[in-house]
Amino acid sequence: MKAVRTITELRAQIEDLKSSLNKTTVGLVPTMGYLHQGHASLIRAAKEKSDIVVVSIFVNPIQFGPGEDFETYPRDEERDLAAAEGAGADLVFLPSVETMYPKAAKTRIAVSDVTSGLCGASRPGHFDGVTTVVSKLFHIVQPNYAFFGMKDAQQVAVIEQMVFDLNFNVEIVPCPIIREEDGLALSSRNVYLNPEERSQALVLSQSLRKTQAALEKREIRTAGEARDLLVSSIRQSSLAVIDYVEVVAFPELSLLEDEAGVLENGEPVLMALAVKFGKTRLIDNCLLYPKGE
Amino acid sequence: MKAVRTITELRAQIEDLKSSLNKTTVGLVPTMGYLHQGHASLIRAAKEKSDIVVVSIFVNPIQFGPGEDFETYPRDEERDLAAAEGAGADLVFLPSVETMYPKAAKTRIAVSDVTSGLCGASRPGHFDGVTTVVSKLFHIVQPNYAFFGMKDAQQVAVIEQMVFDLNFNVEIVPCPIIREEDGLALSSRNVYLNPEERSQALVLSQSLRKTQAALEKREIRTAGEARDLLVSSIRQSSLAVIDYVEVVAFPELSLLEDEAGVLENGEPVLMALAVKFGKTRLIDNCLLYPKGE
Repeated sequence: MKAVRTITELRAQIEDLKSSLNKTTVGLVPTMGYLHQGHASLIRAAKEKSDIVVVSIFVNPIQFGPGEDFETYPRDEERDLAAAEGAGADLVFLPSVETMYPKAAKTRIAVSDVTSGLCGASRPGHFDGVTTVVSKLFHIVQPNYAFFGMKDAQQVAVIEQMVFDLNFNVEIVPCPIIREEDGLALSSRNVYLNPEERSQALVLSQSLRKTQAALEKREIRTAGEARDLLVSSIRQSSLAVIDYVEVVAFPELSLLEDEAGVLENGEPVLMALAVKFGKTRLIDNCLLYPKGE
Repeated sequence: MKAVRTITELRAQIEDLKSSLNKTTVGLVPTMGYLHQGHASLIRAAKEKSDIVVVSIFVNPIQFGPGEDFETYPRDEERDLAAAEGAGADLVFLPSVETMYPKAAKTRIAVSDVTSGLCGASRPGHFDGVTTVVSKLFHIVQPNYAFFGMKDAQQVAVIEQMVFDLNFNVEIVPCPIIREEDGLALSSRNVYLNPEERSQALVLSQSLRKTQAALEKREIRTAGEARDLLVSSIRQSSLAVIDYVEVVAFPELSLLEDEAGVLENGEPVLMALAVKFGKTRLIDNCLLYPKGE
């Protein structure tokens, strides 16, 4: 595995690997580093599907809003390189902010509609920053496949929309959420939690599981009932401050009316949460498929 | 030469040409059709620089504003195919609107700053439509080079900015304005002009030449004097209705103050005009380089 920091060197290394190994397909795993087992599962999925695996590690300033945690976002390059190599990466791309944004950028990619709710409503401009940097990485790496975790389900929907609308020649591969044994979804931001917050944060995955079970057992049926059960479950935690609790169609992310029956129109439904514990904002979700899928 | 109408077929044909001819570089000439000698010069430039030449012909609805001439924009597919073949195209891509926009698109690429003046001010949203469709064509064709005429100098500046900001792996090749013998810059929209308008439209190229000469002979020196001379020259035509007359730095397109000396800070300067004759809006420009370049 090689670690490279410039665009020119990355392109040259990819070309080298392609020609020297006679390998053709490239898989990209875009990350912000501080890699955990969720990232490792993306890298392994990339290894399985592609000849050459590129992992990018870049804490992208333009997807953070004012007052968010860009400065304090956890970073550990040495550990990340070991984790990427262990999971099967061939190349790790670690650009500086100056490499990615050598001048104040004048170009933005904006996706409407799917960005208006959920994290898009709480974090204005966030998804423009995501789509802009992801398109840059796609142009730099020119991957055949790109791997994204379903923990950021809205991010997957937004990127799929961009790829479709702009005819990017890349297949987006969404990968399942990886959880701790007790159910907490893996996130680089989990390190921010103190022990009490860490313990109470379990309410996220528990509320999703409980609501999914209630829907499956037909104890509840509508989007409104699902939202109510999620909210009341989360409120069991004294530290939880709800940012949003939503039940939406996937991948359109259009709001389901309170009286709408969940899964009754044959489309997948996403239950998505963002909740703060102290200063730490965590997200989690559960994607429900119509029976038989 | 082959004409193709779908994205899948175009990608397959490019792959075929690449592998069967062992040719590697691809040049793209994006056009809106109704090809004239300006387009032919772009295709010939592409032929010279690239192994495979792709010409796209697509009247892109999202770069036309309400009340503009999308519906009436001149079209002549049969003549265009002959012209493209004559100039050396290998593939002509003629997508339908449904092929390019199968659903209402939610993704837009917006470039700020360089789009705010000149045609960007007169045609709000125009350049978002241009950058969005050009990025789609770049993703579909994946060219090494793309060729654009300098008649749309602002378009060249906007696309270069997008390519730089988003790390597109394509080299933009600007090509000189092609003119009729009497000086009128070639444009598909020239067919709209009646004989009297056609005759008076000469004032555009004449005013640019006259102002360039006056600057070179030091009869005038500042941006304000250049603007005044351009405006007074254009006003010799009774039919000319000025949309804008500007003197700007290139490629930043920042306005030069009236008292600024043209070319005195070592940067290229663009004199750019948009003028209506009847219902027909024409543009023309002249790029001045510092001495010695």
